[in-house]
Amino acid sequence: MRLQLATWQEVEAYLQRSTGIIMPIGSTEQHGPNGLVGTDAICPEAIAWALGERHDVLVGPTQNLGMAQHHLAFPGTVSLRPSTLIAVLRDTVGSLARHGFTHIFFLNGHGGNIATVNAAFAEIQAERSLGEHSGDELQLTLYNWFTGRRGRELASELFGDAEGGHATPSEVSLSWAAHPEAVKAVAMSPPIAPGGSAQCDARTFRQRFPDGRMGSDPSLASVEHGQRFLQAGVEDALEAYRAFLG
Amino acid sequence: MRLQLATWQEVEAYLQRSTGIIMPIGSTEQHGPNGLVGTDAICPEAIAWALGERHDVLVGPTQNLGMAQHHLAFPGTVSLRPSTLIAVLRDTVGSLARHGFTHIFFLNGHGGNIATVNAAFAEIQAERSLGEHSGDELQLTLYNWFTGRRGRELASELFGDAEGGHATPSEVSLSWAAHPEAVKAVAMSPPIAPGGSAQCDARTFRQRFPDGRMGSDPSLASVEHGQRFLQAGVEDALEAYRAFLG
Amino acid sequence: MRLQLATWQEVEAYLQRSTGIIMPIGSTEQHGPNGLVGTDAICPEAIAWALGERHDVLVGPTQNLGMAQHHLAFPGTVSLRPSTLIAVLRDTVGSLARHGFTHIFFLNGHGGNIATVNAAFAEIQAERSLGEHSGDELQLTLYNWFTGRRGRELASELFGDAEGGHATPSEVSLSWAAHPEAVKAVAMSPPIAPGGSAQCDARTFRQRFPDGRMGSDPSLASVEHGQRFLQAGVEDALEAYRAFLG
Amino acid sequence: MRLQLATWQEVEAYLQRSTGIIMPIGSTEQHGPNGLVGTDAICPEAIAWALGERHDVLVGPTQNLGMAQHHLAFPGTVSLRPSTLIAVLRDTVGSLARHGFTHIFFLNGHGGNIATVNAAFAEIQAERSLGEHSGDELQLTLYNWFTGRRGRELASELFGDAEGGHATPSEVSLSWAAHPEAVKAVAMSPPIAPGGSAQCDARTFRQRFPDGRMGSDPSLASVEHGQRFLQAGVEDALEAYRAFLG
Amino acid sequence: MRLQLATWQEVEAYLQRSTGIIMPIGSTEQHGPNGLVGTDAICPEAIAWALGERHDVLVGPTQNLGMAQHHLAFPGTVSLRPSTLIAVLRDTVGSLARHGFTHIFFLNGHGGNIATVNAAFAEIQAERSLGEHSGDELQLTLYNWFTGRRGRELASELFGDAEGGHATPSEVSLSWAAHPEAVKAVAMSPPIAPGGSAQCDARTFRQRFPDGRMGSDPSLASVEHGQRFLQAGVEDALEAYRAFLG
Amino acid sequence: MRLQLATWQEVEAYLQRSTGIIMPIGSTEQHGPNGLVGTDAICPEAIAWALGERHDVLVGPTQNLGMAQHHLAFPGTVSLRPSTLIAVLRDTVGSLARHGFTHIFFLNGHGGNIATVNAAFAEIQAERSLGEHSGDELQLTLYNWFTGRRGRELASELFGDAEGGHATPSEVSLSWAAHPEAVKAVAMSPPIAPGGSAQCDARTFRQRFPDGRMGSDPSLASVEHGQRFLQAGVEDALEAYRAFLG
Repeated sequence: MRLQLATWQEVEAYLQRSTGIIMPIGSTEQHGPNGLVGTDAICPEAIAWALGERHDVLVGPTQNLGMAQHHLAFPGTVSLRPSTLIAVLRDTVGSLARHGFTHIFFLNGHGGNIATVNAAFAEIQAERSLGEHSGDELQLTLYNWFTGRRGRELASELFGDAEGGHATPSEVSLSWAAHPEAVKAVAMSPPIAPGGSAQCDARTFRQRFPDGRMGSDPSLASVEHGQRFLQAGVEDALEAYRAFLG
Repeated sequence: MRLQLATWQEVEAYLQRSTGIIMPIGSTEQHGPNGLVGTDAICPEAIAWALGERHDVLVGPTQNLGMAQHHLAFPGTVSLRPSTLIAVLRDTVGSLARHGFTHIFFLNGHGGNIATVNAAFAEIQAERSLGEHSGDELQLTLYNWFTGRRGRELASELFGDAEGGHATPSEVSLSWAAHPEAVKAVAMSPPIAPGGSAQCDARTFRQRFPDGRMGSDPSLASVEHGQRFLQAGVEDALEAYRAFLG
Repeated sequence: MRLQLATWQEVEAYLQRSTGIIMPIGSTEQHGPNGLVGTDAICPEAIAWALGERHDVLVGPTQNLGMAQHHLAFPGTVSLRPSTLIAVLRDTVGSLARHGFTHIFFLNGHGGNIATVNAAFAEIQAERSLGEHSGDELQLTLYNWFTGRRGRELASELFGDAEGGHATPSEVSLSWAAHPEAVKAVAMSPPIAPGGSAQCDARTFRQRFPDGRMGSDPSLASVEHGQRFLQAGVEDALEAYRAFLG
Repeated sequence: MRLQLATWQEVEAYLQRSTGIIMPIGSTEQHGPNGLVGTDAICPEAIAWALGERHDVLVGPTQNLGMAQHHLAFPGTVSLRPSTLIAVLRDTVGSLARHGFTHIFFLNGHGGNIATVNAAFAEIQAERSLGEHSGDELQLTLYNWFTGRRGRELASELFGDAEGGHATPSEVSLSWAAHPEAVKAVAMSPPIAPGGSAQCDARTFRQRFPDGRMGSDPSLASVEHGQRFLQAGVEDALEAYRAFLG
Repeated sequence: MRLQLATWQEVEAYLQRSTGIIMPIGSTEQHGPNGLVGTDAICPEAIAWALGERHDVLVGPTQNLGMAQHHLAFPGTVSLRPSTLIAVLRDTVGSLARHGFTHIFFLNGHGGNIATVNAAFAEIQAERSLGEHSGDELQLTLYNWFTGRRGRELASELFGDAEGGHATPSEVSLSWAAHPEAVKAVAMSPPIAPGGSAQCDARTFRQRFPDGRMGSDPSLASVEHGQRFLQAGVEDALEAYRAFLG
Repeated sequence: MRLQLATWQEVEAYLQRSTGIIMPIGSTEQHGPNGLVGTDAICPEAIAWALGERHDVLVGPTQNLGMAQHHLAFPGTVSLRPSTLIAVLRDTVGSLARHGFTHIFFLNGHGGNIATVNAAFAEIQAERSLGEHSGDELQLTLYNWFTGRRGRELASELFGDAEGGHATPSEVSLSWAAHPEAVKAVAMSPPIAPGGSAQCDARTFRQRFPDGRMGSDPSLASVEHGQRFLQAGVEDALEAYRAFLG
């Protein structure tokens, strides 16, 4: 069930059978010559929607903007500061907790969000911990679809070393499976982009990674591959979500 | 063109022919017995996507969360504090301005966002005004799809006094046109909900408006009506956008 | 009764007979060639003081600084950022609510404050709504003296199209009635200033409105007119305040 | 010259002959059984207005709210948090500096503001110091009218040990000289209130100081004494202001 | 060279031969029955001081407080909120960058700091990336002493499965080597504490981990072991620091 | 007892016999040609450690960074903004209060911290005062070691006018007594540095005080003198701490 497509009474009824929710979180940032700016939001959204429909899990609205400061030298990137994203997550979790949700599972599509989302969880729990909060336990977790076992094995099988670290053929494939109308045919040079660290500012990042790719060859991407990643992603995420609910 | 479905090079090329962009902004909040929680995000998104496709305007990712504190006593509502939304918009505009966008048109679906979005514009401009900023002019505007002339006339013709102020048949229709799979058949009692002011906290709001509607009868909504609102909304918004670009 | 001229015991006694208060809020910003920098604070202050004295309503200290970033290219303008003004209002309301005030009526003299003050109200209520606040209802409203019916009719009768949007003859008149020692005789050219939008940064604003006026001819202002605006303003505001108290 | 009663062109002309300005800052807080809630704002305002008129110094609008958290258990007190007051002063100074003011003299009426105002000055200068600011020197100072030599001597001569630390006969006198219509005749018991520290929360403060006075007997106050404090205060402040301008 | 024990001229001279600096960062939090509250600060400080002395690297003052919200149900824990720690690191890095430091190496002793410190780095770089910063490259990295190869191997060899995740025998040993006067002899029951996740609030954490240990048996700690961890830690950190300087 | 060297059970036991704690707070800033960058942290830390050991008082971790913006033009200075230091102190006090500490005594080594620390105390108490906090009384105080009677007399006796205001021979002596390995022999010219105000930005400060000293001759410093200042400082601070506990 998608929260955006439900009524409040349907949410009220859902809360009677579960207090867990999946919140997709991504980013709006360059993904190389043939990858979509929305890749990191589209991928977890596609997985979450499929999972939610098949397994009666409520899926909240996608957080389309993430922490993408290092990509800002490429047109189209829109980044939140970490402090802003922390505030967004604090208000999001506060709203959900008010309704009685106790297990909030952020399904993430962007490595650059990981530190900030975990810092946000600590900010939220700190407020409770400083005040000797005596209310219900609140469980928060971040799950990265791209680290699921099935998906990792598939990427390794299909792309080997050409998977790389950003604008990977696996995420480009998955985003294309969700949006086949947006498939792009673009030549890459060199076939596999240089690798390196992304912990720097935007100007330095673009000097290191001139076309935006990091160690990948996304010309290997296809809609068909993407459909397999979607299936693997749903199974991986479902396993993680069930473990989280305990 | 949707930013989420473009590559950075496509954005770079777009910037050669236009420095304007449309950013849909909505809310995630209860919309009465048959309205979707995502109504206020779905409506401007649907209008923006149609407009963007037909008229070569770049459309950014939808801001799904808005200022909805007064709806928090209804399950499913997720609200940002005004200070959080101001930070989100400051970072969004800062990212876009860095790429050279000069005219940023927020296409809004939620009355509760208006004050905060305008405060955010002032926060952004204040930073420039205090520092004797000498860069390019930056134009920001908020346009509410539900105040467009064509849409207003259509609502008046179709629904008259049953349009009301929240969970209106026009917005419910438009959201259903975008998501026909989510149409709900729910009886309303009384047919037209009581009206009143929404400037209060969540507990008071729910006391005043027990099923979430404000002065409306959304049982009049239909997909067919929604298609007409979509068409009217695109024309209204296009007119406003062109006037904004000057 | 003016709070600034009362003792705490007098306030304690007032709270026995009323939990409402009027808080004047203005701005410190240029008002064209013959308008006072303090116009927007002086006008609501004058109305509030007269109303408070005649009708036993407590009137708090005037908030002299408002959101005036667009006027910063004119010497003498002092602006708060929206985020700062929100913090000021949050602390002001928090202090008053602690004493038992339940109805806080901000009597405003500056259009540029409207969005930010309403965002501040939402920020304050959000804190209550997120926390399932179970205390007393807290009512906050913003009333703009310059939108009162009697005042609008008087401006229309006296000035017609020369009223304009900023540095209007009506507000200049009222400020002069409060401070006749500060009347200025200055020639205007052109008689009626150009109109336009104020939603921009300070540099752009000054380019659009070279002498600071927007669409007005304040050379029509006079102390005598101001006395009539004061009387109309008191009646308009009293009506609004009584409706607010319910 | 009062900024609130000047036009922007008059400010522009003033800046040709001086880049100094006096900003009165006070508080809105209980001042015992016969002292006005606005005492701490009224006193520096009265001194600043007299000084400004006699000596051609520009005087900005009064900051009526200060840091008065410890007085919040007495009705009528309105306090800003220190962080809020810092933001107010940052924006105030930023606005004035933009116009070319280089020497900003805060004329203070409230001991409780001293730490926060000095912290605000450091916050403002830190922004410049961290960034290797290369612009004009910006001089900020805080002057407390109640520590001037002439005023101290007068208080000692008139009241001796009955002067005390809060709700003093000297400040009550001065506020009455500015507002003779607000003189109150109230019996005090005991004649001289107990002394002690104000560094605590509001509940503790009221326990320590049941009627709000700290070590003072303000029944000794009079309008006539107040006129002498006004004269002494103007001379003290003028001396300090001239030394500040160097 | 320790910054705290140097003069500013010595720092000036150091900057001629290197623009790198090591900043120890820890936490103040419970470490089980025989571990010191300061363990996480003492360990990186001891390694940094030894490294700095032997290899002419400047070592800044230790950040003693970290993000330890989950330990707050144990007396003695002092935690910063993530947002506070981000502000501390922003100011620290801003100060160092102003002096010309280009490579700032945070030597960390606390797993709970990792997300927040990386979020802080992103906050700092975002400010540069949003503004098209054209200054020198600024390199920031976080190195956790407890993940160094030599140290890991030593812990494995000495403690095997009894190393655990918090209040480990390796960190307790190292802190004792730095402070032999603080060695404690305390019986543990059970010998190896239960394991689990620390991503929760303080009350939940204490329920999960009643004596504060996570999966460890720190009764195996000794000063002698600690001396070996110090030596291994210096070699591991030096290798990482040199790689960071490139 | 030093908190950093205690276990949580030892802290728990301490709280049975006392709810007071001493928190050393300093700064990291230039101290002239022969003074250590860490002087302002080292001095209160040395006094606190000696006091704590001799008199069974718990001493928390040293806050090494303070408000030192005016020293930022000298290499090695690391400053927190006042707003950052306020947040650090708010979290520190919040953590300690949660454990039951009621009397928190900040032992300070830096004049530049005074305003900000007092503003922080007000920020903390304001949160309690606005909310009608009904918990235990929380006492906070700032004590500056360099204003103790015994220390003042000793400085006067040993150094007379050469004591000055910053980089004084007394603080340099005390820091050397704590770290004899860091004694520096540096010639000073002129012997006594010029005096003046430190309330300015960093660039201005360095113009006024070219070698960093303010009115002092720290060539008079010695380890022996420092040992006497340590003894005097412990006695002064103990007296103040006992008075604070009441």
